[in-house]
Formats: sequence, C-alpha cells, structure tokens
Amino acid sequence: MKIATLSIGDEVVFGEIVDTNAPHIARHLYDVGLKVQRHLAVGDAEEDVMAAIRTLASTSEAVIATGGLGPTTDDITAAAAAKAANLRLELNKKALAHLRRFLAERGRNVDSANKKQALLPAGSGMIPNPTGTACGFHFQLNDCTFYFLPGVPREMARMIEETVIPMLREQSLQDSIIRIRVLKLFGLPEAEAGTRLGGLTGADSPVTVAFQVDFPEIRIKLRAEGDDERLVVRLLDETCLKAREKLQGYIFAENDETMDSVVATLLRTKGLTLSLAESCTGGLLAKRITDIPGSSAYFLEGAVTYSNAAKIRILGVSPRLLEEKGAVSSEVAMAMASGMRKVSGSDIALAVTGIAGPDGGAPGKPVGTVFLALSTNSGCQTREYRFFGSRKEIRTITSFTALDLLRRHLLSC
Amino acid sequence: MKIATLSIGDEVVFGEIVDTNAPHIARHLYDVGLKVQRHLAVGDAEEDVMAAIRTLASTSEAVIATGGLGPTTDDITAAAAAKAANLRLELNKKALAHLRRFLAERGRNVDSANKKQALLPAGSGMIPNPTGTACGFHFQLNDCTFYFLPGVPREMARMIEETVIPMLREQSLQDSIIRIRVLKLFGLPEAEAGTRLGGLTGADSPVTVAFQVDFPEIRIKLRAEGDDERLVVRLLDETCLKAREKLQGYIFAENDETMDSVVATLLRTKGLTLSLAESCTGGLLAKRITDIPGSSAYFLEGAVTYSNAAKIRILGVSPRLLEEKGAVSSEVAMAMASGMRKVSGSDIALAVTGIAGPDGGAPGKPVGTVFLALSTNSGCQTREYRFFGSRKEIRTITSFTALDLLRRHLLSC
Repeated sequence: MKIATLSIGDEVVFGEIVDTNAPHIARHLYDVGLKVQRHLAVGDAEEDVMAAIRTLASTSEAVIATGGLGPTTDDITAAAAAKAANLRLELNKKALAHLRRFLAERGRNVDSANKKQALLPAGSGMIPNPTGTACGFHFQLNDCTFYFLPGVPREMARMIEETVIPMLREQSLQDSIIRIRVLKLFGLPEAEAGTRLGGLTGADSPVTVAFQVDFPEIRIKLRAEGDDERLVVRLLDETCLKAREKLQGYIFAENDETMDSVVATLLRTKGLTLSLAESCTGGLLAKRITDIPGSSAYFLEGAVTYSNAAKIRILGVSPRLLEEKGAVSSEVAMAMASGMRKVSGSDIALAVTGIAGPDGGAPGKPVGTVFLALSTNSGCQTREYRFFGSRKEIRTITSFTALDLLRRHLLSC
Repeated sequence: MKIATLSIGDEVVFGEIVDTNAPHIARHLYDVGLKVQRHLAVGDAEEDVMAAIRTLASTSEAVIATGGLGPTTDDITAAAAAKAANLRLELNKKALAHLRRFLAERGRNVDSANKKQALLPAGSGMIPNPTGTACGFHFQLNDCTFYFLPGVPREMARMIEETVIPMLREQSLQDSIIRIRVLKLFGLPEAEAGTRLGGLTGADSPVTVAFQVDFPEIRIKLRAEGDDERLVVRLLDETCLKAREKLQGYIFAENDETMDSVVATLLRTKGLTLSLAESCTGGLLAKRITDIPGSSAYFLEGAVTYSNAAKIRILGVSPRLLEEKGAVSSEVAMAMASGMRKVSGSDIALAVTGIAGPDGGAPGKPVGTVFLALSTNSGCQTREYRFFGSRKEIRTITSFTALDLLRRHLLSC
C-alpha cells in the first residue's frame, strides 16, 4: 500500500519548528508492517493544502495529514480538504457531541470558535480525540483514504495508535500479528554488537533485527511477525533471550526503560541508599538520579566538589594525596567515594573525577581522562577511562558509564 | 519564487530519524526573505527520487535536495537526478580535484567508492563542500533550478550559507540587505510581552517582529530589510533598544547567548565566585553552571542536599528550623544559602528548596512550591514561587528562575 504523510502549518514549512509528527507516524506504521513512501509538508495557505491533497490523492492509497484543525481562523485544513474533494462542510453530530462533552467536563461551553471544529467535510467519518477538542476525520478521494488529525503531538499520537493504525491495517488487509521488543545496549561498539548477533535469526526467520545508535546507547529492535500471536511472542522471547546471552551484561534496559529508571528500580528494590561525589560531571549525575520521581527514598545527597578545597573539606580527601596524585587520579576518586559514603552514611557512594575539556588536559592526562570509584560496605573499586568528543559528549558518556557501573554493582549484590 | 525542499533517505521516510535539514534550510531562507512553500521527503528508491524530482520540476522554481550523495551503493541521488533530467553521469573534474585534495590532506587516496562521488549529471555545476567528501551540484530542469547537497547537517548547513543562499538570492533578484536580531526574554508571559511591544514598529516599517516560545524562554526575532546596509543596521539597533526599554530587565540574552552563558560571563567579568545548595533541582543547577567550559574559574562547589540530615550536616541548617518551618520554606532556603556561602567561602551562594512532584505536595505547599535564596556579603534575599507543570517542567523553570535571580543580582552589583 502506498502511504504518505502530509504535515500542514506555516510553522513547519517556514522551519520555525521541527516536524516530529511525520517521523512519529512513519515509525509506528513501520513497526506494524506499513511503509510510508513520502512525507509532504505545506503551509496554511488554502491553495497549497488543496494542491497537496489533490496530488497525493492521485499517487497514494492512504494519506495521514496532521495540523490545522484548531479553533482559530488560520486553521483551514477541514475547509481546504472539503474544497479539494468537492464536498461541502457540514456540522458533524458526533464531533459536536464530543466537543460538548469534552468542554463540559472542564466547566466550559461550546463557543463559535470551538463549534467550527465540528464542521467536517460532508460524509466523512469522525476520528475520536480523547485528549483534545479537535476531532479527526477521514474520507475517500479517488482511490485514496485521507486521515486528518490535529497537529498536537500528544493528541495525534494517541489517535494514530487507537484509530488510524487499526483502520490502515484493515484497509491494507494487513492482519498479521507484529510484536516489537527493544533491547538497549551500552559499553560495546555497534560493530562488535553486530558481530556477536550475527546468525541470531536465519534469513527466512519471521524475526528481524535492526540497530539504531542513540549516543551513547545502542538500540536493538527485534520485530516478529506471524499469524499466531502465541507463536510470535514465543519466538520473540526466545530471540530476546539468545540476544541477551550473546551480549552478556551489556543490555541494560528493555523497551521504555532507561538507564536512569533501571538504576532507580534496583536501588528501590534492594533498599539501598546512595550518595554522589562529582567533579567533572558537575551535578549531571545527581540531576539524572533526581530526574526520577520518588528518588528521595534512596538518594541522600550529592556533592559537586569542583575545587580542591571542597574535596578536602566536604569529602575529607587528604591535601597530600591531591598534591601527589592530582585531583584527576584513581586514588582521589577512591578517597572521594569513601569520604562521601562515610559522611553521608549511605550504603553506596559513587565518585567521579576527570577532565571534560575543552581545556585542562595535561601530559598523560588528556581531555577525556576520567576516574570512577564506587564505595560500598564490601570495599571500594575504581576504574580509569579515556573518552573522546566535546565537553558535552564526555560529560554525557561519563554519567552513563557511572550509572552503568552502579547498575552492575546492584545486580551483583 | 516558489521554493521546495526535498529530503532523500530511507531513514527519514521510515521515521528512524527526525529530519532537521528541511527546517534548517527553510528557516535560513526565510531569514533572507525567501519563503519555502513545501517540503517533500522520499526514501532511497530510484523511482521515488525520480518521481519527486519530476513533480517538483513542474511545480517549483528552486528545489534544495539533501541526502544520498555518499560513497556507498545505497546513495543513489546523483544517478536518479541524472535519469530524471535525461542527463548522463560524467566525471566532474572540479569534484574529482576536490576529492583528491580533501583526501590527500587526510593522508588518503581516492578509491573507487569515493570516485563515485565525483560522478555528477552532465553539465551540472559543482557546489563546494569544505568539510566533507560529498560535493553538491546544481542543474536546471524545465524552469526549476535543483540544488543537491549531502545529508550530513553540518556539511549541508555550510553549503547552504556559502553557496546556495547567494545563488538563490541572485536567481530571485533578491538583493536587499536583511539583518536579524534575536532578543531572549524570561519572566513575562507572551501576551504581556506582545502588549508591551505593540506599536514598536509601524505597519510599513522595514523592521518586523515575531515571537517564538521555547519553554521557558520567549524569543523575539527582529528582522530588518532594506537596500542600505548602514541604514538597516541602524534601524535594527534603534528597534532593539526600544524593545529593551519596553521590556526593562526581562531580556536576558541576545542571539546565540543563553541564560547559562550570560551568567557565566557576568561571574567571570565581575571576578566573583559561586556555590550552590540544591534540594528540588537535585544537581540541575550545578549541571547548567558546569556545562560552560571554564566554569571552574568561578564555581567552587555545589551541595545536593536531598535529605534533612545533609542540610543540617553540610549547610549547618538548624534541626529546629527544619522542624518548625519545614524543609520547603523561605527560612530554610535562607539558612541553606547562608550556610553554603559560609562553608565554601564563595562570594555568592544560591539555594533552592521546593516540591518538584509528582508527589510530596501538602496543604498550603502544593507541588510546584519553590523557595530561592541568594546570599552575598551584603545580605540574604529570598523569594517564593508557585510553578505548574510536570516534574521536569518545574525543575526546568526553577533552574531558569534561579539563574535569572543570580543574573539580576550580578547586573546590579
């Protein structure tokens, strides 16, 4: 089936915003076996919208359009669509009922601006919008079905999932079962991961494997398709297990989990408390830990000890050690972690010291040199790393590496 | 002039990446008075690229295409463009010379994969790529000029600025001078800012004003156009000054400056040192301060005192105060700031305590309640705020507000 997206809005076509709706739709359709062939974007001018609709009607079998369904006068999509299809606008009763109910729940009445949102091309079907006033609609033009949705990403996403994808699958006679599993990997280069997963699935296997790099993590998308849901799920489970075996401990999360949420869950379920001593990450690690709601249950405190004086006073690092080994050293990283654990009384303390750049490198300790240390009641471990990239990249990968070290420790204890 | 963009690549059309090239091009063209009318994106299939080129050739006067100029076999843009225009591919001498020079500087020879990148549609002009192997090219088809550029955003951006925009301006007989100034505003609602700037420029003024919200800041884009560069710049300067007067201290930055960089510059030039005591922002404030290279010159330390024990031990907040007023109170915010300044020895200490949510709200102190305190050698000031939104939004606007408080203090001292 030939599918196209159509994004409507001056803000898109003049580049004021980056259109994330079209890629969102394409990705979710791809996941259920439907390939989008082209994306088109035009501004809010009626003639441009009409021309786009007419062109797409002769080249596509399904078009998912977003934008221009709001209550203001510059929202002209419904009117332009009606004109392009030689239909008149009429008050859609289902859409009006939705508007009434939606606004009543918020203690408001339907005013004339809102009422405009219930004027749809005659004969078109209504697409429910559970989270906003703008209903969607669909109609047929030539051999093409047009689906019109609001441009608000959150509203659009839900309508795609709940209504448009089921309708498209029916339209395309696509009724096989498709399931997706995403494994998130950290600490192994993409090429190495690819080699390890070579032969994971055969050439004619109903499971496919795709890689996507989202620095600094790699996402491995496993996709299984078939007629029997139980078989599809079992195949996916088996492939997932095999992939995990081949990649040992490098898979840190699945699907919607993140490194931050996985570490949070481990700390909570193990009932352990955490404190942090940061130098080069400068609070980034604490920010990531406290991004997670409820983190106050296990996170006690963090120290951003940028100056040597702070390392000495707060963490009890010895001035002689700082002088002899330098602030960026495994010895100081360990002293920071041990000191932090002692003063905070936490079960675990994680410390970071390093050179994020762009300046501050020295012979033997170039920009990107980082030491991590993890102090627990069973001792203190330290690791040295050499990262590359911009200040931002070095700080990002350092925080990722530190959380991964913590994750691996929590899994083993 | 009717202008379109064409983005070529499976990764774009299947939604694996969000296309930022088309909006980048549209925005930069808009800034010089050229409006893009449509964006089209297709995958790497030859027939799709050819169909797109032929359609655009009959509806546009200029097309800027990106992607598919790499050395690998799935990069088919040059071949598809040649076919669509009924041209053969030929070795472009300028392109080959560029490739030779570019690779030689990196100690490499031109191999057959790279050599493919010098095969361009016969008669097309070469567009230099100073930062990569993939040259661009341009040719005429019907009444439309096609510009083909690589998809790598950094390379594309430079080629747009250096070659495509000057050529387009010549093609469109657009030779007026256009200058842009962006004022960044924080702390005033968009509607209020709009009211204050009403009548800033007359209806027939060569200066236009546009607003763009980028939570939590508002960007005001002033754009002046004319034939005389000195006049254009003077007009823009005058309008800028008037806008600043009407918005008093709410403008915190211009053009590429950010809240973080402005605060950093003020601290550096005033020669003052800073320490931070954070509760609800959990390190976000320290992260933003240390995002800026060279921040160790003025940033001494930060404490993320999530627990009461940490507030007492590190900052010297009195246990009785915590019990009587609660951790989220102006009294505790002041005690945190004063304590931090004392122990760190910094010139300025900034403290934050609040409830970021989603849980933790209490009667009289709902989620979003935040207290800031700023301690300096001339005393301690505190402010109470009530923010709305998600945990992430509350943390973001809190960090912004804290930096703005610091900025205003630094400007006044």
